[in-house]
Amino acid sequence: MLLKTLREELADAEVPSHRLLVRAGFIRRAAPGGYTMLPLGKLVLDRITAVIQEEMLSAGGQEVSFPALLPREPYETSNRWTEYGDLLLTLKDRRGADHLLAPTHEEMFTLLVQDMTGSYRDYPILLFQFQTKFRDEARPRGGLLRGREFLMKDAYSFDLSEAGSIAAYGRMRAAYQRVFTRIGLEHTIVSATSGAMGGSASEEFLAAAEVGEDTFVGCTVCDHAANTEAVTTPVPAPVLATAPPLEVHDTPDTPTIAALVELANNRRLGGRDDWTAADTLKNVVVTVDHPGRDPELLAIGVPGDREVDMKRLEAALSPATATLFDDFAASPDLVKGYIGPQGIKIRYLADPRVAPGTSWLTGANEPGRHATNVVAGRDFTPDGTIEAAEVRAGDPCAACGEGTLTMRRGIEIGHIFQLGRRYTDAFKVDVLGSDGKPVRPTMGSYGIGVSRAVAAVAEQHHDDRGLVWPAAIAPVDVHIVAAGKDGQVEAALELGATLSRSGLRVLVDDRPNVSAGVKFTDAELIGIPKAVVVGRRLGEGLVEIRDRKTQERTEVPMVDVAGVIRADAG
Amino acid sequence: MLLKTLREELADAEVPSHRLLVRAGFIRRAAPGGYTMLPLGKLVLDRITAVIQEEMLSAGGQEVSFPALLPREPYETSNRWTEYGDLLLTLKDRRGADHLLAPTHEEMFTLLVQDMTGSYRDYPILLFQFQTKFRDEARPRGGLLRGREFLMKDAYSFDLSEAGSIAAYGRMRAAYQRVFTRIGLEHTIVSATSGAMGGSASEEFLAAAEVGEDTFVGCTVCDHAANTEAVTTPVPAPVLATAPPLEVHDTPDTPTIAALVELANNRRLGGRDDWTAADTLKNVVVTVDHPGRDPELLAIGVPGDREVDMKRLEAALSPATATLFDDFAASPDLVKGYIGPQGIKIRYLADPRVAPGTSWLTGANEPGRHATNVVAGRDFTPDGTIEAAEVRAGDPCAACGEGTLTMRRGIEIGHIFQLGRRYTDAFKVDVLGSDGKPVRPTMGSYGIGVSRAVAAVAEQHHDDRGLVWPAAIAPVDVHIVAAGKDGQVEAALELGATLSRSGLRVLVDDRPNVSAGVKFTDAELIGIPKAVVVGRRLGEGLVEIRDRKTQERTEVPMVDVAGVIRADAG
Repeated sequence: MLLKTLREELADAEVPSHRLLVRAGFIRRAAPGGYTMLPLGKLVLDRITAVIQEEMLSAGGQEVSFPALLPREPYETSNRWTEYGDLLLTLKDRRGADHLLAPTHEEMFTLLVQDMTGSYRDYPILLFQFQTKFRDEARPRGGLLRGREFLMKDAYSFDLSEAGSIAAYGRMRAAYQRVFTRIGLEHTIVSATSGAMGGSASEEFLAAAEVGEDTFVGCTVCDHAANTEAVTTPVPAPVLATAPPLEVHDTPDTPTIAALVELANNRRLGGRDDWTAADTLKNVVVTVDHPGRDPELLAIGVPGDREVDMKRLEAALSPATATLFDDFAASPDLVKGYIGPQGIKIRYLADPRVAPGTSWLTGANEPGRHATNVVAGRDFTPDGTIEAAEVRAGDPCAACGEGTLTMRRGIEIGHIFQLGRRYTDAFKVDVLGSDGKPVRPTMGSYGIGVSRAVAAVAEQHHDDRGLVWPAAIAPVDVHIVAAGKDGQVEAALELGATLSRSGLRVLVDDRPNVSAGVKFTDAELIGIPKAVVVGRRLGEGLVEIRDRKTQERTEVPMVDVAGVIRADAG
Repeated sequence: MLLKTLREELADAEVPSHRLLVRAGFIRRAAPGGYTMLPLGKLVLDRITAVIQEEMLSAGGQEVSFPALLPREPYETSNRWTEYGDLLLTLKDRRGADHLLAPTHEEMFTLLVQDMTGSYRDYPILLFQFQTKFRDEARPRGGLLRGREFLMKDAYSFDLSEAGSIAAYGRMRAAYQRVFTRIGLEHTIVSATSGAMGGSASEEFLAAAEVGEDTFVGCTVCDHAANTEAVTTPVPAPVLATAPPLEVHDTPDTPTIAALVELANNRRLGGRDDWTAADTLKNVVVTVDHPGRDPELLAIGVPGDREVDMKRLEAALSPATATLFDDFAASPDLVKGYIGPQGIKIRYLADPRVAPGTSWLTGANEPGRHATNVVAGRDFTPDGTIEAAEVRAGDPCAACGEGTLTMRRGIEIGHIFQLGRRYTDAFKVDVLGSDGKPVRPTMGSYGIGVSRAVAAVAEQHHDDRGLVWPAAIAPVDVHIVAAGKDGQVEAALELGATLSRSGLRVLVDDRPNVSAGVKFTDAELIGIPKAVVVGRRLGEGLVEIRDRKTQERTEVPMVDVAGVIRADAG
């Protein structure tokens, strides 16, 4: 087998799964954000693929396979050619026609269903495919965790009624739970935002992992779970506006919240010396890029004890993207460090905590000056609210109103969407209903990152010696180590052949000139559930079975190996 | 099942396999040269894939999977970034870096092997992958026959000795024969040219089919077979140069060979009236585009009874490409219709039949004039020979020197190459030999067009009613047709469930409101090996088994269906 384990650590591998998958010979970097699956990695990928395929078929799915290279037009119709932005990899063919490497296939599935169906009798429909997807990630990271090219299972449901669509969504949700349970991924289903996909509702499947890019919240009381982008802030009870009139103060050298709070307390602004950052209103200006339109300046108001979370901001603005504005020299109306919402000339969106009647210490729109008693709804009226402030552990839960939020990190391994009619509207898909009238199908879309799941499993299943594969998706069932030169190699190969014939998948380490110690270390690194050591008691017909996870070792007669391993596997 | 058969013929489907695969609901066009595999098509593709995988593994191959999107550099090193020309699909990522969608992966496999091996102990190596390939075909045609995106199995062997490399080539050749035999493709192995792949020797596997793009020859005596690009012309025995001196004649209005021959006989040029086209020398001027260099004018001399075959010409010039030159106004030295090789100022390559001592009637490089007794080696000396003249049935066989050539058309389904060290030289791959000295591996590369094989099988296995799948790769084993409304649908579904449990793959046509006649027609179009009709004798417990190929019909008790079908399958 083309297998070379590495002793040294990898300079560019920042997460355990990446490090271990490379070191143990499962994957190898071939391009920026592009990894080669080596034989062991390909075996794991195939086993995960088989589990997903089985669950998709038993959920009533039919497997198809679309091209990856597609013409621009359908994605123009849905507006995703523009909305997808820089993530989209595009190219021109020899005739100069625009093409894209599809990030997902909503458009094409919709067109196929439009083409192949005409009547309510053809519905409901659930289609899926396994396909290599391409996304021009700005920062590929973590090996298989976030690549520019990856294997995805995408599925699409088409139903003629809202109830049918919700039922399909529920079936897929259950199928996803079975998939992730079977492949050994501890996971949480969280409410999510829909992003560039569009649609009304969506949930993410997150595999708990410290290295995960997604932060999600749980509640100490209820079963609410959401990724931070989808967290909603409870609206505070209305406040009676009894604050004194707005008052402007000289506050020299206070461009930061910390400096402002210190000065406010030192000078007893408004007669108080208990000012905290939470009493201040921070106003952050961003440049918003709406797909296909001119950039817009937008100010976001959040309590001064919170940062603007750019991921939450982008989710709230999607499909537009936002970057921090810093060209204050060109905008004399915007006084850097001293911006206030009163009289501001650009669009202004406020955190829900900036509710009508709340009173704030904020910028006076003049250099070195701030204002107290700036009351929302009296001194300024935001153009709307926005969920862009950072979420923190201990924040109140909006779902139950009783508990507080806890925070964890996870890897997004699945995402399911109720798309509604976004795409069937775009392509004007109508079929004959049972009442003779045209009806427009409702869609769902459902994705699993298959290659990413390999990394997620590795992330959840390893120890300090290496990988510890769950039996259901291990590259092989048994790793036979020939430890010795007195016939052990021959016996190991013979045992391998016997176990293979009995239906077990076997890897035999018969390398000559490699010490038993190195072989053991490699076996632990590779992480096959069971190792069989053909060693010094071979003469007595005895071999040792080692359990990778429990580290339990058992001596058994060679003839019993298959039976013992099968019994253990249950 | 998402299945819609079409009655009407397709306007854009020029070959039977394309027409039938679309009409029977196996594939659907999604992009220029890009087809979606529908559920039935995906099943066939998967079965062919499984056969290939099995044979690759049993030939000692290890499966890997490379990215499709790759950086420019490795392909620059091998020069294929340029040599591949317009076929290569390239794009720039968000950083402006050049990438390509790999047409094949020699470079990446070579780099992987360089990275993962260091010693003779790691060899020999045989790796393979199944992967979607992209090529910007100028004229995609025939559905899956020639697409811009297609599934390919590519394999690469690495050996440290010439003998080892030849043995690997032989093993893969045998594995390919087994693959094509198992999936039901009648095929011929022909000598081929290596094209942009480089290397010393190659053979193609051609599936005989009238619609095939490749023309290949066989011999009436020996077992020689070659595609027309690789046919060699036997060199004629040396001719004693006894011809009289070159003589120029006025031959007005004879820009074509036909006009020239007629005039030559009418005027008894050189005292003869038995001139034929074969006595004349036709000189064709082409513009040759060498990758990365300025275009070059080149004249090709062929006997006047033969055309220049552009495919043979391009194969002979590869990696350069050629187009017919027609800007004679700009080149006064080249007199259109009256070009002769004597004194020609551009590079001149001649057909092997234009051997030293042969005498020709050809242009005199003056308008309206030709010359007789123009003797090769006396009056002109070509810069070399070239195999560019058309090959015809009846031509002598160069392999045995006895037989003559017969011609057939075929679809290229496999291509195997002895690459030698082209790529290991380019990347300077050296490993430690058993004698302690560095040794450079020798490569082979081996490809099967997997999606194209689906079309090739359809091309060889159909009749005027539709497709006739070989049992080994049929999408399912049994097609059950419910023909009737007296419990037939329920009985058909129950029979389907029973057969499924017995391990058979089953398709049940339980469509309501569709007549039995339409169902039968569809079943014949789809081409499952066995159909079971649950019809009017259901009450007696009898169903009819129909063999798609032989059209044989047998009534059997419902309970015996599984047994009868299995017995038939052998």
